[in-house]
Amino acid sequence: MTDVIRETVEAVLDEVNAISLPGPGYTRPSYSPEESAAHRVIEDRAVALGLQVRRDAGLNLFARLPGRDRSAPALHVGSHLDTVAMGGAYDGAAGVAGAMALAAAFVASGETPPVDLVVTVTRAEESVWFPVSYIGSRAALCRLDAAEFEARRADTGRTLADHMRAEGGDPQAVLRGPGLAPAQFVELHIEQGPVLFDAAEPYALVTGVRGGLRYRQAQIHGTWAHSGGAPRETRADAVFAFADLVVAMDAIWARELAAGHDLAVTFGRVEGATPEHAFAKVPGHLGFCVDIRSDDVAELDRMDAALKAEIAKIEARRHLRFDLGAPSRSRPSALSASLAARIADGALRLGHAPRRMLSGGGHDAAAFAQAGWDSVMVFLRNWDGSHNPAEGMDPADLAEAVRALKAAWGDAQGQPG
Amino acid sequence: MTDVIRETVEAVLDEVNAISLPGPGYTRPSYSPEESAAHRVIEDRAVALGLQVRRDAGLNLFARLPGRDRSAPALHVGSHLDTVAMGGAYDGAAGVAGAMALAAAFVASGETPPVDLVVTVTRAEESVWFPVSYIGSRAALCRLDAAEFEARRADTGRTLADHMRAEGGDPQAVLRGPGLAPAQFVELHIEQGPVLFDAAEPYALVTGVRGGLRYRQAQIHGTWAHSGGAPRETRADAVFAFADLVVAMDAIWARELAAGHDLAVTFGRVEGATPEHAFAKVPGHLGFCVDIRSDDVAELDRMDAALKAEIAKIEARRHLRFDLGAPSRSRPSALSASLAARIADGALRLGHAPRRMLSGGGHDAAAFAQAGWDSVMVFLRNWDGSHNPAEGMDPADLAEAVRALKAAWGDAQGQPG
Repeated sequence: MTDVIRETVEAVLDEVNAISLPGPGYTRPSYSPEESAAHRVIEDRAVALGLQVRRDAGLNLFARLPGRDRSAPALHVGSHLDTVAMGGAYDGAAGVAGAMALAAAFVASGETPPVDLVVTVTRAEESVWFPVSYIGSRAALCRLDAAEFEARRADTGRTLADHMRAEGGDPQAVLRGPGLAPAQFVELHIEQGPVLFDAAEPYALVTGVRGGLRYRQAQIHGTWAHSGGAPRETRADAVFAFADLVVAMDAIWARELAAGHDLAVTFGRVEGATPEHAFAKVPGHLGFCVDIRSDDVAELDRMDAALKAEIAKIEARRHLRFDLGAPSRSRPSALSASLAARIADGALRLGHAPRRMLSGGGHDAAAFAQAGWDSVMVFLRNWDGSHNPAEGMDPADLAEAVRALKAAWGDAQGQPG
Repeated sequence: MTDVIRETVEAVLDEVNAISLPGPGYTRPSYSPEESAAHRVIEDRAVALGLQVRRDAGLNLFARLPGRDRSAPALHVGSHLDTVAMGGAYDGAAGVAGAMALAAAFVASGETPPVDLVVTVTRAEESVWFPVSYIGSRAALCRLDAAEFEARRADTGRTLADHMRAEGGDPQAVLRGPGLAPAQFVELHIEQGPVLFDAAEPYALVTGVRGGLRYRQAQIHGTWAHSGGAPRETRADAVFAFADLVVAMDAIWARELAAGHDLAVTFGRVEGATPEHAFAKVPGHLGFCVDIRSDDVAELDRMDAALKAEIAKIEARRHLRFDLGAPSRSRPSALSASLAARIADGALRLGHAPRRMLSGGGHDAAAFAQAGWDSVMVFLRNWDGSHNPAEGMDPADLAEAVRALKAAWGDAQGQPG
């Protein structure tokens, strides 16, 4: 069994990551031909394993290994195959590789899982492409609305509906529903943070997914002026105003953490190098993004108010105007304690006691939880961050986590096949 | 006389500004075909006026109206015709239009100026293109060195020597010299600040030009990470580090002004929107420019030290690294009090008492002053800033300033023609 899991993990990662737009790193945009090609890799392997394969109208892929109790809610295991631009080899792909390895382990051992095991490969999880959260999983659940289908992809300017159709999907069918009935979902995913690496632990159980509040197209409208000619008191400098805001939000962030709230604040993009910008000009314009995350909706609302209060002060002081644009939000989600307990039992039988932790990033598991599923995540130790070409993970850690799932649902639990 | 001055001013501005790369605004890069075409407009007009036209090896244009005393140092009047990218209609062009109007007024009135009047059109004054200050005027003075000829133009990546040769110049001849012998230089130029507009004054005399210290290619090297996954204490966020620096320099700037020092601090370009940047990533890199100006070399040195001290603190606190790159410097220059007094006399005869003020921007007048010339500037009221398409100026103000020069050097001073 060990060999099947490890070999499947490595082979799936290799085959999926052979598909990418030009590097550095890996680029498979949401609803792109590259994402579709990566899905075909999994489909081909699933067919070869003898699984029952189907695609839904949103082009999510489901590969089913029938269980002993065909009427019980199925166990879905999976993740996504799209990436950010110039992303890493493991964000998403690791979870799909792990799901395929789990199915392969059942097939290789001749065991029948207690319930249907469904390798679940979602679409469009990386919301850098379309300003909509959890597109693929929410399409599977038929929880996307018509307005969201009009969202435009950042690189092409074409709508989600258009891109979904181009790859063979059917937006109208997604809107009509019905979506999947509640079942169970387990997502293996790299941690995207240094906690497990620093603690030398291979994997962890995730008790909740942070929600997010983002302003992706915020702008500051100041006044262009000559850098030598404009006296200090006459300036309306967009860069100084931005710096004021960042430093103020940094102080608020530290204060909220000290008060015991969960919070992360990031200004991931700053656009101040257009042809109009020059070293000898007081900058009259700046574009930026801000991304605020917490496990608590009330904290997100407090931070939204704090952001706007700081902006009002800066506008008054610097005689310029901020335009935050439309926010996009994702709700914090508690994950399934019972699924976590079952996986912990499996891990314990292999001599592991994985910690419980929170996910800072949003994941499809949150969308399933919000739709009433029992949904949980397993975080995999990784290093050199995430969403970048250097993103690191040891396939042995992933294999170890898959073995814990096998122990939790397989024969070793005392249920004869 | 009034009509000749006003008509010449408006006609020259119209003809010069008809030459530009595609807008918005006006773009005539240094040593570009567009700058050369604008020089030909002036050459053609000068020949039509009967002036003696010559170009030097650096392609500066000189159009001479002989004076009564041919052996006395000539009176050069002029400015430049290159612009920043998407610049305004008056920065540089106004001074050339004013010089042509002064010559036209002498010709129209049949007066001979007391000394040779030389309409002087310099090259490559806008140092956004090549990281070298006052290129054209320093070429005329043969004060460029061989290393500066290797500087590369920001848009093309080709060297100054290459671009100068492409337009017909001769870098080797510039290096050989000799340059112009010291004489007198008067530069009419828009203020590029709001002081005269706010005070409702048409023009002013400039007593000195601020020097500058610039880091044009500064970079911050932090660590890319997932915006939700990286705990606060593990981050090395390039945007937060940049904001720390800007806010620190803002406080230092306020303190230095309060202590009576002359100072301006500008971060004109911020580059944080590469394909690698995304709202969901902790930014691992940021590029920026910083431009520090003062009338005092010691203040520039103090600010350089202060900048580096702040950076050292931020590097230690945020676990990242700044790379300022190579600085470029221009020296502060005191301008000619005797020329200012002569122009003030002319203005007084027309009922004006122009204020004395400092120039925040660098100008060719500084290069002439540094080479031992009697050099002075006249600032023209303008609005909506400078180095941008909206840059505003009233040609009537320019005409009024030209009349003051005519009064200072013409017959009205009691020197019969």
